[in-house]
Amino acid sequence: MNTFGNIFRLTSFGESHGEMIGGIIDGCPSGIPIDLKLIQKELDRRKPGQSAITTQRRESDRVTFVSGIYEGVTTGAPIGFIIPNDNHHSSDYEILRKHFRPSHADLTYFLKYRNCDHRGGGRASARETATRCVAGAVAKLILQSLSIKVVAYTSQVGSIKLATPYHELNLKLIESTPVRCPDLEVAEKMIRLIEEVKSQGDTVGGVITCVCLGVPAGLGEPVFGKLHAALGNAMLSINAVKGFEYGMGFEGVQYRGSEMNDPFFYDERQKRIATRTNHSGGIQGGISNGEPIYFRVAFKPVPTLLREQKTLDIEGNESSLTMKGRHDPCVLPRAVPVVEAMASMTLLDHYLINRCYDLDVL
Amino acid sequence: MNTFGNIFRLTSFGESHGEMIGGIIDGCPSGIPIDLKLIQKELDRRKPGQSAITTQRRESDRVTFVSGIYEGVTTGAPIGFIIPNDNHHSSDYEILRKHFRPSHADLTYFLKYRNCDHRGGGRASARETATRCVAGAVAKLILQSLSIKVVAYTSQVGSIKLATPYHELNLKLIESTPVRCPDLEVAEKMIRLIEEVKSQGDTVGGVITCVCLGVPAGLGEPVFGKLHAALGNAMLSINAVKGFEYGMGFEGVQYRGSEMNDPFFYDERQKRIATRTNHSGGIQGGISNGEPIYFRVAFKPVPTLLREQKTLDIEGNESSLTMKGRHDPCVLPRAVPVVEAMASMTLLDHYLINRCYDLDVL
Amino acid sequence: MNTFGNIFRLTSFGESHGEMIGGIIDGCPSGIPIDLKLIQKELDRRKPGQSAITTQRRESDRVTFVSGIYEGVTTGAPIGFIIPNDNHHSSDYEILRKHFRPSHADLTYFLKYRNCDHRGGGRASARETATRCVAGAVAKLILQSLSIKVVAYTSQVGSIKLATPYHELNLKLIESTPVRCPDLEVAEKMIRLIEEVKSQGDTVGGVITCVCLGVPAGLGEPVFGKLHAALGNAMLSINAVKGFEYGMGFEGVQYRGSEMNDPFFYDERQKRIATRTNHSGGIQGGISNGEPIYFRVAFKPVPTLLREQKTLDIEGNESSLTMKGRHDPCVLPRAVPVVEAMASMTLLDHYLINRCYDLDVL
Amino acid sequence: MNTFGNIFRLTSFGESHGEMIGGIIDGCPSGIPIDLKLIQKELDRRKPGQSAITTQRRESDRVTFVSGIYEGVTTGAPIGFIIPNDNHHSSDYEILRKHFRPSHADLTYFLKYRNCDHRGGGRASARETATRCVAGAVAKLILQSLSIKVVAYTSQVGSIKLATPYHELNLKLIESTPVRCPDLEVAEKMIRLIEEVKSQGDTVGGVITCVCLGVPAGLGEPVFGKLHAALGNAMLSINAVKGFEYGMGFEGVQYRGSEMNDPFFYDERQKRIATRTNHSGGIQGGISNGEPIYFRVAFKPVPTLLREQKTLDIEGNESSLTMKGRHDPCVLPRAVPVVEAMASMTLLDHYLINRCYDLDVL
Repeated sequence: MNTFGNIFRLTSFGESHGEMIGGIIDGCPSGIPIDLKLIQKELDRRKPGQSAITTQRRESDRVTFVSGIYEGVTTGAPIGFIIPNDNHHSSDYEILRKHFRPSHADLTYFLKYRNCDHRGGGRASARETATRCVAGAVAKLILQSLSIKVVAYTSQVGSIKLATPYHELNLKLIESTPVRCPDLEVAEKMIRLIEEVKSQGDTVGGVITCVCLGVPAGLGEPVFGKLHAALGNAMLSINAVKGFEYGMGFEGVQYRGSEMNDPFFYDERQKRIATRTNHSGGIQGGISNGEPIYFRVAFKPVPTLLREQKTLDIEGNESSLTMKGRHDPCVLPRAVPVVEAMASMTLLDHYLINRCYDLDVL
Repeated sequence: MNTFGNIFRLTSFGESHGEMIGGIIDGCPSGIPIDLKLIQKELDRRKPGQSAITTQRRESDRVTFVSGIYEGVTTGAPIGFIIPNDNHHSSDYEILRKHFRPSHADLTYFLKYRNCDHRGGGRASARETATRCVAGAVAKLILQSLSIKVVAYTSQVGSIKLATPYHELNLKLIESTPVRCPDLEVAEKMIRLIEEVKSQGDTVGGVITCVCLGVPAGLGEPVFGKLHAALGNAMLSINAVKGFEYGMGFEGVQYRGSEMNDPFFYDERQKRIATRTNHSGGIQGGISNGEPIYFRVAFKPVPTLLREQKTLDIEGNESSLTMKGRHDPCVLPRAVPVVEAMASMTLLDHYLINRCYDLDVL
Repeated sequence: MNTFGNIFRLTSFGESHGEMIGGIIDGCPSGIPIDLKLIQKELDRRKPGQSAITTQRRESDRVTFVSGIYEGVTTGAPIGFIIPNDNHHSSDYEILRKHFRPSHADLTYFLKYRNCDHRGGGRASARETATRCVAGAVAKLILQSLSIKVVAYTSQVGSIKLATPYHELNLKLIESTPVRCPDLEVAEKMIRLIEEVKSQGDTVGGVITCVCLGVPAGLGEPVFGKLHAALGNAMLSINAVKGFEYGMGFEGVQYRGSEMNDPFFYDERQKRIATRTNHSGGIQGGISNGEPIYFRVAFKPVPTLLREQKTLDIEGNESSLTMKGRHDPCVLPRAVPVVEAMASMTLLDHYLINRCYDLDVL
Repeated sequence: MNTFGNIFRLTSFGESHGEMIGGIIDGCPSGIPIDLKLIQKELDRRKPGQSAITTQRRESDRVTFVSGIYEGVTTGAPIGFIIPNDNHHSSDYEILRKHFRPSHADLTYFLKYRNCDHRGGGRASARETATRCVAGAVAKLILQSLSIKVVAYTSQVGSIKLATPYHELNLKLIESTPVRCPDLEVAEKMIRLIEEVKSQGDTVGGVITCVCLGVPAGLGEPVFGKLHAALGNAMLSINAVKGFEYGMGFEGVQYRGSEMNDPFFYDERQKRIATRTNHSGGIQGGISNGEPIYFRVAFKPVPTLLREQKTLDIEGNESSLTMKGRHDPCVLPRAVPVVEAMASMTLLDHYLINRCYDLDVL
């Protein structure tokens, strides 16, 4: 199941240490001018080696489109693209041929597939998310022309939380720190924590918040195609994600209905029924209501530690494992563009699905 | 999108105040003896009027199977079933023809569909989840024969939390209190809170925890069919759900990798590689690892209040609304079987998918 | 796999001798007024007992809609419907519990499912196509409002062929003969042949031609969603169908490219590029070109004979079988509305899919 | 819709004159040794320039696998592959930027997509079928290990028909003539006809017959996933195909049921219920019955003529067009491996689907 989406679909291939990774975007409308620089820029936001707090692995991560675009514009044909893998140190992983890393996918892939590519985590590696950034960037381009904006940021690293709600933040500052947190003071604390954790050969988790602005009312398909379920499914497909909540989420369970309900008013400027608060997170009954959609995604600390761990080998014997090389002490900064990519694909997909039923056209 | 699942699929129909609701289960293996009493029992666990803390609406909720079962055994043909709607007071809802309830799906359905059935929430009503209980019970029957057990319970109501982890609880006590919390002391507090909230014409949210025992290793399809993403999607499709987390979830983000990683050991009794802790929640890289799967689902307080609320009418005029009748002050107790049903369908679906690729058979 | 379609979808249930058959139409746009009489009329065209040349089985075949329609108009919710089975003589089929009818699905269902409902052919019976007529009639209603017309007729029974091409026929005459052939002279011959065959306790096959007028250019999704492949798939899903061809089909293989190519001209009246001939059958590269779509569907003689046949019983012993009761000597007349129904659903589905990508809206 | 299949799935990309074509095979079981030579050989059977009766275009058509195979064996990860396009003369097609070829997809692609790649037919070119041969060869490999054999041959070119039924032919002779007809005398006539047609700058159509041996009983999913409907859909997705029939097909409509029904007998050697004749073509009620499956596929004469044709340009002005270059006078010989590839993928897909429900395993 390497296909994501219903109408706008990404099918991807590739392992961490194979020759290349890539994908096919199917269902992209024709006539869309493709700004290759913008797409490469999205991909660059994910690539390793951007700063001292991410992995030092250096990959150029250049995407090449090989079909579906003619003279710079989409043709409606499937968009094939490839990204060569040019900096893999497979020998660092030779030990994994016979050992399982704790809390990694090594064991489960082995149990499911028997024969699997252990090098660099193979298909289970987050390297695969680079293809999502490419398809997500194409989706973003189209959403932009529809005035829909998707933006994510790091809102928690370990126990350092950004308490300010999204609408009080200056989201333009996100890219100004390597940790991608728009509150620069909090960002500084997050960075220090990551550096500390890194120095211990350890890792730390966190939370990414994503905000979708300008989403028109009416997207989402009851009852098994609810918009928030589609977003949740998209986020939970990202490596290391352990939780998803939208609107007031888990925190909201302790309030009364009378506190949580969002009162309506008629917004004269937007000429639409709006809500004064947005505890609901922009979705009611699985359908967008025109308010901003926001959600939070929990990432566990990545399990690859640069210090010794006890483990078992393939025969079940006790053993110990010390991973070498270049690993992220915290995936959050590099996961921000992946969250945006998956949200963008999901929203565009639902935008296109919803067009099928549009009353004014039929 | 009223179909759930890939191989084992439920397609459902029906509005709250229509003549009947029902569904079609497709992809159910043939030769399965169907215990109608067990299925009706699952449906009864969801039905209204069970106790003082749920809605006093009285519905008999009798399911009738109309195809796909011959002489008590499944035939491989689609299993059709219907549940008559016999206790709807549509006149209670006449006001909704022209008014939107805050934080309900009334407005979004109106914006998306223009013409919709307002009576009792129409298709957006949680009444639809009765069909999930029927299909889920069929799935449960099959899972039982595979020694897989799915059990859910209320672990939080408002700010009253059950802190004890699942493996220290006596899960047999779940059904012994109307709130479906296996710690009887905590259950008592929850019930008192719900009664208090109810007396105020208000509502309250909560959390349901679900545990899946006996799930074999290997279920789940990387990268866009991960088992936890499928479970998350299933849970987020349930009315009023705002969040999903599995394993250590959101809490886990503040720990170090060295604290969160689950150490391996060889379990002599089970003859398999097991883990000493289970922070991962039984899934690695989207594939089950043989440990118990557990996850938590956040439910918002239901928005239907039995007291006056300000709102807008269909023309955007300010108005006020007082719902009459019989509503749940807290959906958690009745949502427990729905969570189990969706989890059961998801696990069975992935069990069947995984069989396609089983090496030993091919 | 009891679901047909991508956006506009029918999921059906029910066996020949069960309590009822029915279905769920998902993805139907909201706001469509449903003319129940027209839908019942389509269903009546398929029902048994219409004339001396069809089965004498009397079924009232009344459809009841149970969801998705409010005050006569679709709501966007799934449309549930049921048709009671009220005239089954299951005892006529008791022998089939232990015997397989030659060239029927009895053996293959037994081999695939082990436990299956033998009564009246169970799920394999063409009774199931009644649900297609209902969903097809809903599709037809919507196509009508888009000025798309789908009409089918019997063009061959046994060796009696209607040689006249569709555009030289008066298609309004189709319903004026029980065999549904618009050339009344040929129809008469067909009827006599069917009567003769019937008197021998035998059966005969034939061909149905279907014409789709007013289909706009642009429907169909290369490369694995070609419009003619979707139509072929739809037709081949109908009981007793053994072949499908469109445009010049099998006959066209013997011509040269220079004879078969359809020359273009600019049609001033329609303001579009049209073709002088239509050997292509209205589809090029899997996409409709604005010309009439026409195709032919081959039906084998139904295998149920009212005379003795040799067969095997369930243990493999030689045996003989004489079916009693009421069977069609030729299914063509009653299959005409089924062909129209499947074509209508396919065209509407592709119309809706195509809207996702429409340039003028994006 | 560039994805084919349910469990075993091919998603393909690429235009005739782009940099490369390729695809992703998803759902391939792990642990399958991949014989690259065998796969390249299947691809070579389709490649241009094989003989005097096919196009003289010279393409090396080398496939490279870039993921999903580790140390020669499938891993369960998606199998990515690419085939460079190395011999395109795009300038031959410059005229197509503004002119539509009659009975080609040029006009319909233009109407549907507005912006499309005209070079060499772009995505509508049969070049795309090379990716099917690759995925089909992988499927064939797996089918071989299941003792299922798929073989196709040219049974008609223009009006020259091979009358002998498949079971009286020596299918080992298929590859011994360039036209891929196992009756060498008939093959000779076909070749002479193609040469004659070619010398006139014209083209001719034909029929391919395909036989599937060793298919176990039970494959195919009623009612909308019938095995013959899946095969028909697969064949109709191939360029230039206008018809599909299985078993006695269109010819069978003129016989009586008493002539067409296949009598059963118990086959002691195979220990199964078999049929004495096989008019049904190995499928009953959409499910394989264990007999050979055979079907016929009609190909129109390709519309690209090497002589002048009248046409319209993009503004609707009359014009004339003479294609230069290297085209097939008859696609049949090169379509034989494509038919086999699509049949192999379809059978494997249904084999895997059927495993989900297998009673003996559950």
